[in-house]
Amino acid sequence: MSNTFGNVFTLTTFGESHGKAVGGIVDGMPAGIKIDTAFIQQELNRRKPGQSKITTSRNEEDQVELLSGVFEGKTTGAPIGFVVYNKDQHSKDYDNMRHLFRPSHADYTYYEKYGLRDYRGGGRTSARITISRVVAGALAKMALRQIGISIQAYTTQVGHIKLEKDYHLYDLKQAETNAVRCPDAEMAQLMENLILHVKEAGDTIGGVIACVIKGTPIGLGEPEFGKLHAQLGAAMLGINAVKGFEYGEGFGGVEALGSEQNDAFTIQDGKIETTTNHSGGVQGGISNGQDIFFRVAFKPVATILQEQDTVDTDGNTTTLIAKGRHDPCVLPRAVPIVEAMAAMVMIDYYLLNKTTRI
Amino acid sequence: MSNTFGNVFTLTTFGESHGKAVGGIVDGMPAGIKIDTAFIQQELNRRKPGQSKITTSRNEEDQVELLSGVFEGKTTGAPIGFVVYNKDQHSKDYDNMRHLFRPSHADYTYYEKYGLRDYRGGGRTSARITISRVVAGALAKMALRQIGISIQAYTTQVGHIKLEKDYHLYDLKQAETNAVRCPDAEMAQLMENLILHVKEAGDTIGGVIACVIKGTPIGLGEPEFGKLHAQLGAAMLGINAVKGFEYGEGFGGVEALGSEQNDAFTIQDGKIETTTNHSGGVQGGISNGQDIFFRVAFKPVATILQEQDTVDTDGNTTTLIAKGRHDPCVLPRAVPIVEAMAAMVMIDYYLLNKTTRI
Amino acid sequence: MSNTFGNVFTLTTFGESHGKAVGGIVDGMPAGIKIDTAFIQQELNRRKPGQSKITTSRNEEDQVELLSGVFEGKTTGAPIGFVVYNKDQHSKDYDNMRHLFRPSHADYTYYEKYGLRDYRGGGRTSARITISRVVAGALAKMALRQIGISIQAYTTQVGHIKLEKDYHLYDLKQAETNAVRCPDAEMAQLMENLILHVKEAGDTIGGVIACVIKGTPIGLGEPEFGKLHAQLGAAMLGINAVKGFEYGEGFGGVEALGSEQNDAFTIQDGKIETTTNHSGGVQGGISNGQDIFFRVAFKPVATILQEQDTVDTDGNTTTLIAKGRHDPCVLPRAVPIVEAMAAMVMIDYYLLNKTTRI
Amino acid sequence: MSNTFGNVFTLTTFGESHGKAVGGIVDGMPAGIKIDTAFIQQELNRRKPGQSKITTSRNEEDQVELLSGVFEGKTTGAPIGFVVYNKDQHSKDYDNMRHLFRPSHADYTYYEKYGLRDYRGGGRTSARITISRVVAGALAKMALRQIGISIQAYTTQVGHIKLEKDYHLYDLKQAETNAVRCPDAEMAQLMENLILHVKEAGDTIGGVIACVIKGTPIGLGEPEFGKLHAQLGAAMLGINAVKGFEYGEGFGGVEALGSEQNDAFTIQDGKIETTTNHSGGVQGGISNGQDIFFRVAFKPVATILQEQDTVDTDGNTTTLIAKGRHDPCVLPRAVPIVEAMAAMVMIDYYLLNKTTRI
Repeated sequence: MSNTFGNVFTLTTFGESHGKAVGGIVDGMPAGIKIDTAFIQQELNRRKPGQSKITTSRNEEDQVELLSGVFEGKTTGAPIGFVVYNKDQHSKDYDNMRHLFRPSHADYTYYEKYGLRDYRGGGRTSARITISRVVAGALAKMALRQIGISIQAYTTQVGHIKLEKDYHLYDLKQAETNAVRCPDAEMAQLMENLILHVKEAGDTIGGVIACVIKGTPIGLGEPEFGKLHAQLGAAMLGINAVKGFEYGEGFGGVEALGSEQNDAFTIQDGKIETTTNHSGGVQGGISNGQDIFFRVAFKPVATILQEQDTVDTDGNTTTLIAKGRHDPCVLPRAVPIVEAMAAMVMIDYYLLNKTTRI
Repeated sequence: MSNTFGNVFTLTTFGESHGKAVGGIVDGMPAGIKIDTAFIQQELNRRKPGQSKITTSRNEEDQVELLSGVFEGKTTGAPIGFVVYNKDQHSKDYDNMRHLFRPSHADYTYYEKYGLRDYRGGGRTSARITISRVVAGALAKMALRQIGISIQAYTTQVGHIKLEKDYHLYDLKQAETNAVRCPDAEMAQLMENLILHVKEAGDTIGGVIACVIKGTPIGLGEPEFGKLHAQLGAAMLGINAVKGFEYGEGFGGVEALGSEQNDAFTIQDGKIETTTNHSGGVQGGISNGQDIFFRVAFKPVATILQEQDTVDTDGNTTTLIAKGRHDPCVLPRAVPIVEAMAAMVMIDYYLLNKTTRI
Repeated sequence: MSNTFGNVFTLTTFGESHGKAVGGIVDGMPAGIKIDTAFIQQELNRRKPGQSKITTSRNEEDQVELLSGVFEGKTTGAPIGFVVYNKDQHSKDYDNMRHLFRPSHADYTYYEKYGLRDYRGGGRTSARITISRVVAGALAKMALRQIGISIQAYTTQVGHIKLEKDYHLYDLKQAETNAVRCPDAEMAQLMENLILHVKEAGDTIGGVIACVIKGTPIGLGEPEFGKLHAQLGAAMLGINAVKGFEYGEGFGGVEALGSEQNDAFTIQDGKIETTTNHSGGVQGGISNGQDIFFRVAFKPVATILQEQDTVDTDGNTTTLIAKGRHDPCVLPRAVPIVEAMAAMVMIDYYLLNKTTRI
Repeated sequence: MSNTFGNVFTLTTFGESHGKAVGGIVDGMPAGIKIDTAFIQQELNRRKPGQSKITTSRNEEDQVELLSGVFEGKTTGAPIGFVVYNKDQHSKDYDNMRHLFRPSHADYTYYEKYGLRDYRGGGRTSARITISRVVAGALAKMALRQIGISIQAYTTQVGHIKLEKDYHLYDLKQAETNAVRCPDAEMAQLMENLILHVKEAGDTIGGVIACVIKGTPIGLGEPEFGKLHAQLGAAMLGINAVKGFEYGEGFGGVEALGSEQNDAFTIQDGKIETTTNHSGGVQGGISNGQDIFFRVAFKPVATILQEQDTVDTDGNTTTLIAKGRHDPCVLPRAVPIVEAMAAMVMIDYYLLNKTTRI
């Protein structure tokens, strides 16, 4: 339950940062989809630590191995098992963590929930776990390509530096041309400077990732409790460090009047369209064929290289000073994870929608 | 799938606003819980239209009938079926809707998804459907009482008028003493004035509801894809008109540094506590025993009494003028729904957590 | 979980025999299916007690009321809530059961599991609960009609009296022309005599129901853990008094050699067919287009009008003498329940199969 | 869905016989359980081909590697990923299968369902896939040990040779002392002779495996659709070559009278017990504390070394002569699989039962 995501297209994951491997099983992948393994690796590289000076310098080589479900280059409809072995582990770095609860990490809650914990590098709660999501997301994207659905996430805010213009006014593809993954090169530079500044102080900073989904057919979404945006929200809120989700106008729209925010219908080229898209492509929990647009808030990463007050497992107060490497801003590496989760939701809901009529 | 919520404590709902009845089935209700039917009715009354001059004047008498699962005043562990028959229907009011798609409603997406729709009063997508959630939430609250978990939601923003202080500085119980359900009487009056102003113009306005959960044991939350806040988010995003969810510092915290936002651990009265609660009571997706705090953004209701451009089912452009009654601001009536959904998540996760160890 | 059946076409039920009502919610019913309410009632009548002298004389009038999900005679894709109010209850008849555990009933296990129980007429464990299955099965059958799948169950054995010939050699429609629901009129008479004989002795007798499904497309079945026959088996084993399930050659085939039991492929009228059907229409858990054939074993009903040794809730040994009416053989009334459960599995798996490819 | 089994203790599997590996993920394993890896290997050895002259001579070395979820010898509550790499593959042996559908195998149904198939050694439908079940079952058994539940399966019939006495009259532990896994040494010898005889003829033979579960607490089982025996049945029917499932008196009990088959309650040593156990330890779908007893029918394996009529993928009739090695009787190797599936059901239902009360 807790380690499986999706309804008919599902991902189940396993692994800890300092265990033998991380990996997962994608079940419900449609049969007959051509598999592009280079693309999966490319997606993993977008998530990889050490890819630029503004991410952690921890160097991970995430080589994924597909173990099943593909035959002669195509998916067979059987589950796709995959594994990425852990290498650059430095488990000893974490010996001092054994009896400490790191502030705003999951150390304490895991310890209380399970009665024990794998303290090495966050164990099951490490960001390394998201590798499995990126692999599954890459598979989902391959299926979505055949339907014509494309997904593009990008960094829209780091700390106080934020893009102010509507997403239509940017060339979103440009996001991949800089380390921050922001489509505005000038703003990207400012964001990068801020991140480097924060990094030097051994501190971390949060931000916002936006995501646009194009080409969605009308009708995706399960009404009541499986609304399309609710499932996208659940997917995003499950990503490490995420503190908020909004779609369409989101929190910004609460001050508007209904007369300002309703999306009037019109006919364009013989098709029903809306003249505006305050709804963010979803109405009543179901896609209406317009662009789907949502935003995800990330808090600053909890690991900082500064002294912090905490307690140990014996209940004594103490202080913690993390050493070594840290990730000053999770956003650049989180962009592919946001896309991956969105891709899984979209293919799952596309398939589910096929069950609506005989 | 789409009309069921929860894992081991589940609610499955049915009903349309102008069908015979709305209702549902609560499964997984723990056995041996004393049932207080007056409390269920009281919760329904909090959701009821026509309860004040700032809600719709549509007068619904929501009399719930429990059909099973209770014997001699206690739950038996069997599913609890319940039904609320529809009365004040005025189906004819909607005859002009038959061939029209109301802007920013689900008319168009339902029609495309299913090939037909019950157009009367929004049918399955009506806010009336939330009755079932309030009933189930009342049952969940009765179970939570035994554990010591309490839930309090309140209106914290209407349009541009918002509470600025931390929730600790209000007596949240005061929220139930005014029509807006805001704990600050003075602000409540301003909000009420704004809503009345908007109502007179035949328009609608959005806002934000906040919710505080107290008394949660440490350890609730399913890691990875069933994180406690992710499930709370999915629950909230499934409520009509919700456009955003954030917990702890949420979107507001993205500008902060890690050193500012981490919650240091300390010992108080022999127990491990955090000195701050930026995390909003959840760390790594698991409750840490501190107050759980989240906020939910509501857009202005789509039904306005103004002329709007739209198209009909034949693909012609036309205009729509809704007549009669409308709900200028959904927040006062949505407060009990937010609480109900939160209550369902909390009891579900409390029960799930019991499966963690032998 | 426990009161919901199915994957995308689901039934969730509620109700006790002496509560206010029994009923349920069908979710995932495909949209646009024409609803024939007379047919639902007709199916309920097949399940009804008191329909002949060989069933219990308890007279139930099961009038079903559909509460939602149907608009202008067609399904809308919304959940279909339904209710059947209890009438002929005679709760007082069961006062002496309050402190007793009836042998081979669920009284004791429910009491231990939940700490209390609704002792009136079996409460949640009553056969009356199967009303909800018959309603849902009738809805499933209406959807299956459009696909061309038909389901026919019949009594093939009562006590030691059993049909010996292959099902092809009977006109299965004849099963509905006698009280036992056996397609061989002569054998039906023998079975009926046996049941009356047993009834007079205040005793009960078991038997076997067989079921044939025709017109199944090739490809239905979820491999590994959701094999078509495994889901049919789970469905049947969930029916009160069922003790066994077999498909194809079943237990009878264990003595055969592989060379005798393999179904050779051949071409008939340009289509791939098997020359025999020892497999019962399912190979590797997936339908192969041949007739699906299975058998279900029913034990004798536990309620007998004879003195039995038992214990009371205080742990004293005592004796129980049930009075009044009893059902000497559950099979005639179980035939529509077997069909209903099979119908739910078939429509569910038909819809699931649509998610296999893009 | 299709490749996941269980509710809160779940197994998701992947792998094909001639792919890179088979494996799976166990989620919901309780935290704090001591892991005995030698025991897992020992269970795998019981399933292994080539372990005696009456099984296939295909030599598999199934070395399992646990990849996660265990820390310092104990389970952490995190999912346990595991993998067994494929070695002795001989993929070329199957080249002639590419365009053929083997009779009574899943070749044809998979091909039709998915539009393509991995034809090598049965691909996803190979018995090799059951490795994952045995691993998960071994983990489940370790958890069950702490509760005091033990599971023992054994071969009770091969072809026409069957044990006639009640299971109480055998020392079931003796089953592991012979190749057939039958607790009666004399009968085991007869069974072995029969299997060897069949093997020489290039043929196969079916049989029945019985299973006894001891030490089950009262109260396990989810009423209505998740009855304990229904879940056991679904588990067994999902095993390759299984054609039937019965518990308690099963099909044999349909000829009995209620007065003969009801299990009277009595008091023994101050505890409520039944004087007989026709029910097989389950009443109303819930364990009553008596031994759980069920039987599983296996058809003869479809792979025979004899000429068979079939068709090819182009729709031409042809003949097939399988060469090489075959498994004359699946039962000896299926015994640990039956136990494994039963163990998974029991731990899952034990955990589920904890959610019944607060």
